[in-house]
Amino acid sequence: MELVTVKLVIPEGANLILGQSHFIKTVEDLYEILVGTVPGIKFGLAFCESSGECLVRVEGNDPELTQAATENANRLAAGHTFNILLKNAFPINVLNAVKLCPEVCRVFCATANPVEVILAQTEQGRGILGVVDGLSPKGVEAEDGKAWRHEILRKFGYKK
Amino acid sequence: MELVTVKLVIPEGANLILGQSHFIKTVEDLYEILVGTVPGIKFGLAFCESSGECLVRVEGNDPELTQAATENANRLAAGHTFNILLKNAFPINVLNAVKLCPEVCRVFCATANPVEVILAQTEQGRGILGVVDGLSPKGVEAEDGKAWRHEILRKFGYKK
Amino acid sequence: MELVTVKLVIPEGANLILGQSHFIKTVEDLYEILVGTVPGIKFGLAFCESSGECLVRVEGNDPELTQAATENANRLAAGHTFNILLKNAFPINVLNAVKLCPEVCRVFCATANPVEVILAQTEQGRGILGVVDGLSPKGVEAEDGKAWRHEILRKFGYKK
Amino acid sequence: MELVTVKLVIPEGANLILGQSHFIKTVEDLYEILVGTVPGIKFGLAFCESSGECLVRVEGNDPELTQAATENANRLAAGHTFNILLKNAFPINVLNAVKLCPEVCRVFCATANPVEVILAQTEQGRGILGVVDGLSPKGVEAEDGKAWRHEILRKFGYKK
Amino acid sequence: MELVTVKLVIPEGANLILGQSHFIKTVEDLYEILVGTVPGIKFGLAFCESSGECLVRVEGNDPELTQAATENANRLAAGHTFNILLKNAFPINVLNAVKLCPEVCRVFCATANPVEVILAQTEQGRGILGVVDGLSPKGVEAEDGKAWRHEILRKFGYKK
Amino acid sequence: MELVTVKLVIPEGANLILGQSHFIKTVEDLYEILVGTVPGIKFGLAFCESSGECLVRVEGNDPELTQAATENANRLAAGHTFNILLKNAFPINVLNAVKLCPEVCRVFCATANPVEVILAQTEQGRGILGVVDGLSPKGVEAEDGKAWRHEILRKFGYKK
Repeated sequence: MELVTVKLVIPEGANLILGQSHFIKTVEDLYEILVGTVPGIKFGLAFCESSGECLVRVEGNDPELTQAATENANRLAAGHTFNILLKNAFPINVLNAVKLCPEVCRVFCATANPVEVILAQTEQGRGILGVVDGLSPKGVEAEDGKAWRHEILRKFGYKK
Repeated sequence: MELVTVKLVIPEGANLILGQSHFIKTVEDLYEILVGTVPGIKFGLAFCESSGECLVRVEGNDPELTQAATENANRLAAGHTFNILLKNAFPINVLNAVKLCPEVCRVFCATANPVEVILAQTEQGRGILGVVDGLSPKGVEAEDGKAWRHEILRKFGYKK
Repeated sequence: MELVTVKLVIPEGANLILGQSHFIKTVEDLYEILVGTVPGIKFGLAFCESSGECLVRVEGNDPELTQAATENANRLAAGHTFNILLKNAFPINVLNAVKLCPEVCRVFCATANPVEVILAQTEQGRGILGVVDGLSPKGVEAEDGKAWRHEILRKFGYKK
Repeated sequence: MELVTVKLVIPEGANLILGQSHFIKTVEDLYEILVGTVPGIKFGLAFCESSGECLVRVEGNDPELTQAATENANRLAAGHTFNILLKNAFPINVLNAVKLCPEVCRVFCATANPVEVILAQTEQGRGILGVVDGLSPKGVEAEDGKAWRHEILRKFGYKK
Repeated sequence: MELVTVKLVIPEGANLILGQSHFIKTVEDLYEILVGTVPGIKFGLAFCESSGECLVRVEGNDPELTQAATENANRLAAGHTFNILLKNAFPINVLNAVKLCPEVCRVFCATANPVEVILAQTEQGRGILGVVDGLSPKGVEAEDGKAWRHEILRKFGYKK
Repeated sequence: MELVTVKLVIPEGANLILGQSHFIKTVEDLYEILVGTVPGIKFGLAFCESSGECLVRVEGNDPELTQAATENANRLAAGHTFNILLKNAFPINVLNAVKLCPEVCRVFCATANPVEVILAQTEQGRGILGVVDGLSPKGVEAEDGKAWRHEILRKFGYKK
């Protein structure tokens, strides 16, 4: 068994959701969940079928995002994993719906940060072990940092 | 710390669900969730208690599946992990109910594929890092592949 | 890429929940979820912001637990991860609410056991690969072990 | 405004789920939810579209149940209500999935009992006010009644 | 068909949750949900079985609340309805878990207010049409009212 | 007890969600849920506080919708009920999140149709019994009707 590190493509302005699922039905169900949750959402998604034809299964309504999600699936090459790239929407808008998709096992990360994926490579295939999602912390917030985040969440209207 | 790879037993015709949980109540709650979701389901499940007596805790209504789930728990030997083997039902039937079980932290995979589990072994114990679930993709679906999966999901009645 | 093992602080009598999320809103939403789920809960939580200021973002209503959660975040130093330490409540009380928090991707573990976290360290940052949650099993429960757990779950009132 | 009472058809051996929803997409989503939750489920469902063509929209995989659900929709004639009739499955198997269908507002009842529905009839249309689901209680369980239900839930395997 | 109004008993300091369910398993599942969500919760609950023996089925861990819930079930006498009375906990702590109980159809109200229930009485039985939960509004909040509620939610720690 | 029928205001292009909840925290939680689910959503919401000051509690980010929701609350005058009016979004986008709001008991309807609400008026206050949501059906869909709805759901991208 060998450890492999892969960097994912996240087009400018897009967010990534990376997960593990269990069936080709995933691609159509995630398509419908995304379209049904945010009007005007743009996305591409790709799923690594891991038996039978073993094809990367692809859906989306935006060519650039769909192509990038396909590229990510090819780089990952890990059975039953999926990735979604989205624009005009944020992970917070869709994440509960994605988690409750009946084929989804787990979500590794949801982010606009640079992402490195750590995988195990065996003779059989590949599996995701974890992700490096953005940078490590440089310190602990002080009072001014608390005030800033309290304010920005209200400025964006996320919190009352 | 050492990395270990373990292959799991999946009896012919069965599916596996592998997860992390936090309490011995898991075994009775998962039992009730499985029985309550699919009439006629056959299953075995095993959970690695990780304090006190540190016993593999076992439930099920099918001896072969229960024995295989116990064998998997012994191979994994990772605290607070569980595995379910099921027949007469598929992961899609039960996965949301399993994910909403109040002791379940996460589901690593749900599959009928051969599964290799990557674990960390320390002096203290063991933890699952990830899974190789089936094979890596061999290509990207073309139009005929899209047509095939669209049709098969409808032939099985899963999608309209 | 290098593998790193980190031990987490769990104060006497506390439980830990360790997860992956995607946004600084996590800290306020988890605060509200915890306060809204168990009256009298005591907790501290910390989240590793992974872009911009890259600060550990902290909330809580108990200074010792908040300080310990901050210490855990510093030890982990893995972008978009969070940890919660709680008293006067158990993970089973809050875990479904935490899993349904709209920013939460996944929960790695929920436990009062000693926890070792396996991380990947790259030039970019760090990511959690998995956890060793308590000890490995020492055997399989026999009839007396089954009877004991059946009884104790009913003695504590968890099951009828 | 006038109050109207309507009796619903429940074929021998079937169960009824009666609810309120908000969009014609309901019929396809409920179809997929039912097929995806219990292998071998037989069902019919009907939804009262309440604008545009105002047609009863129908799906199912069993002609008798589909016809009976259509008959129920015609008797109810209440905008945005739906009813499902199912065999080879019980409401407990599918109810959480139905409640989490993104178009479903609420479920009035889930039962194999005779059902009378109380509706309001106005010039505009009709709305469900409530249901009489089976019979009124004849007393309070004594110790033998408690023992009986405790035992029967375990005899059927529903509870441990 | 006749309309009936019934006042429910809510002991001093208790809250009521009133709902519709579909099976005697409800009483044990709600018991376990309540115990599993808030440590130290005190409650009583009663469910109107509506076929077979047609008994009020009762659970709880507090005699006064259990007796009051039984009295409420007798007053309601409506098939497949349940009521929970709770202390040391508030509806907000348990409501999502109650709604996700696999037998629960819907929750009519959750309140510490005086409650009047409007029922339909037919020859067959009774059904809940709705509830009067407390008093009607006396006006619309002005700026000082907004400020008061904003402050009190933060004073109680519910919101940040 | 008297039955009352009330028509609700739904501004041109808006959708209505009508529900029952249990606490003034509802207004802030629904605000955050709506903002967090659809970027650019416009809405107003109003909740009938039913004890203490008994004020209609109001939130929103669009003056016209907020004023209309307030008007609806005044017309309803039913304790612990709420209504949401939304634009730039549809009920399907937000309904699961609203149903999982920890204070929400039930949703009566979600619609752009004309809505009549049937209420009970007692000396104590008022309660919603049901809704007439749009028109009654005029017939059952034939093959051409089935084909139309199948096509339109795919034309809008809602279904694959």
